[in-house]
Amino acid sequence: MHLQRSLDVRTDGKGAYGLNRLLDEVVRESGVKTGLCVLTCLHTSASLVVTENADPAVRQDLLAWFERIAPEGDPCYTHTAEGLDDMPAHLRSIVTSTTETLIVSDGALALGTWQGVYLLEHRLRPHERRVLVHVHGDL
Amino acid sequence: MHLQRSLDVRTDGKGAYGLNRLLDEVVRESGVKTGLCVLTCLHTSASLVVTENADPAVRQDLLAWFERIAPEGDPCYTHTAEGLDDMPAHLRSIVTSTTETLIVSDGALALGTWQGVYLLEHRLRPHERRVLVHVHGDL
Amino acid sequence: MHLQRSLDVRTDGKGAYGLNRLLDEVVRESGVKTGLCVLTCLHTSASLVVTENADPAVRQDLLAWFERIAPEGDPCYTHTAEGLDDMPAHLRSIVTSTTETLIVSDGALALGTWQGVYLLEHRLRPHERRVLVHVHGDL
Repeated sequence: MHLQRSLDVRTDGKGAYGLNRLLDEVVRESGVKTGLCVLTCLHTSASLVVTENADPAVRQDLLAWFERIAPEGDPCYTHTAEGLDDMPAHLRSIVTSTTETLIVSDGALALGTWQGVYLLEHRLRPHERRVLVHVHGDL
Repeated sequence: MHLQRSLDVRTDGKGAYGLNRLLDEVVRESGVKTGLCVLTCLHTSASLVVTENADPAVRQDLLAWFERIAPEGDPCYTHTAEGLDDMPAHLRSIVTSTTETLIVSDGALALGTWQGVYLLEHRLRPHERRVLVHVHGDL
Repeated sequence: MHLQRSLDVRTDGKGAYGLNRLLDEVVRESGVKTGLCVLTCLHTSASLVVTENADPAVRQDLLAWFERIAPEGDPCYTHTAEGLDDMPAHLRSIVTSTTETLIVSDGALALGTWQGVYLLEHRLRPHERRVLVHVHGDL
C-alpha cells in the first residue's frame, strides 16, 4: 500500500510552521499501520526539521542562531541577485533537512513526546511552499 | 517483510555511543537481505550521526566543535529553563540527524569501511535514550 | 520491485558534483513508477546535499561558508594525521547528509524545479567516491 500527497503551506515569511496535523491526516488516509512516511521539501530556501514542540522559544532561538551562523547580508556571499536573505536561506536549508523519513507504527507517526515536524521558511517574505509526502507499508 | 524494534541506550552524559552492534542484531533478526533500515531518535536533545569509526579523536573533535558553533550558556538563548546545556542540545541535534535511512544489502547494513552510526548525547547528565528501528525488504 | 546500484564518482578535489543524471538512469532502469530512491554516501569526508541547481555561485558560496564554520587547519582539531583538510571534511559531511531519501513519482525523482542532488567532496585532492542507490516501489 502506498499513498502520495502534496502539502501546500502558505508561510508568512521567516518562521517554523508545524506539519504534524497535516501529516497525521495523510497517514490516516493511507490506512498504513506499519511503514514509512517520507517527506521531501520541494524548495532550496525552505526546509524541514524535527525539534521540540512544547516551548516556542526553542524555534525562536533556532531562528536567532541561524542569524549568527549564516547571517543575512554577509558580504562573503556572491549569490545575491534575489536579495540579502537568499543565500543564507540556502545555507540554513542545508544545515537542516530537505528530506526526512519517519516511521509509522500502530497507524501513527512514531515520534517522541516532545518532537514536532516543522517546515522552516527561511525567506523574509511570504511564500507558497510544497512538501511531498509518501506513505507506504502494511494495512 | 518488516520488523520494528526499540533500542534503549543509557548514556553517561555528553558523548557518542556506537549503535552498529545493536543495529546489526536487528537486521539479522529481521532476516531481510535487501531493503532499508530506518532510524528515528525519539528525542530533541540527542541525535544520530554517521561518521568515522576508527579514531575516537574524530568524535572528540566533533563534540569540541559543537561548543564553538552552539556554545553552552550562550546569553543569546531564551529557552533556558532546563539548564545551560538544553538549547545547545537542540541546536546540535538539528545540525546532525533525527532520522537516518540506511540500505540493507546481502543481509547487512551497507556502510563504508570507516563509517559508524552513533547516538549523540548532547545533555551533560546521563539519560535513557530510545532509537526506533524499522527494517523492511525482501528475505 | 527493488534495484541497488553503486555510483562511482571521480572527484577533482573539493567541490560539488551533480548526481541527477546518474540517479535518473538508476530510477529508469528500475522501472519503478511510485516509490523511494535512497542514497548512502559510503564515506565520512564526502557527503550529499540537495540544493539550488541553477546558479553555480550557490555551491561556491556553500564551499566558502564551510571554510568559515569549519576551517581547514583549525588548531582546535586533534585528529590531524591525514592532513589539515581531514577533520573539517568530517565536520562538513556531518552538517550536510550521509543519507537522503528521495520520492519517486510517475517514474522520476520528485524534486522541485530548482533542486539538484550533489556529492560534496570535502578533501582537497581527487578521490574515488561511491554512492549506493536503492530504489524500490511499484512498477
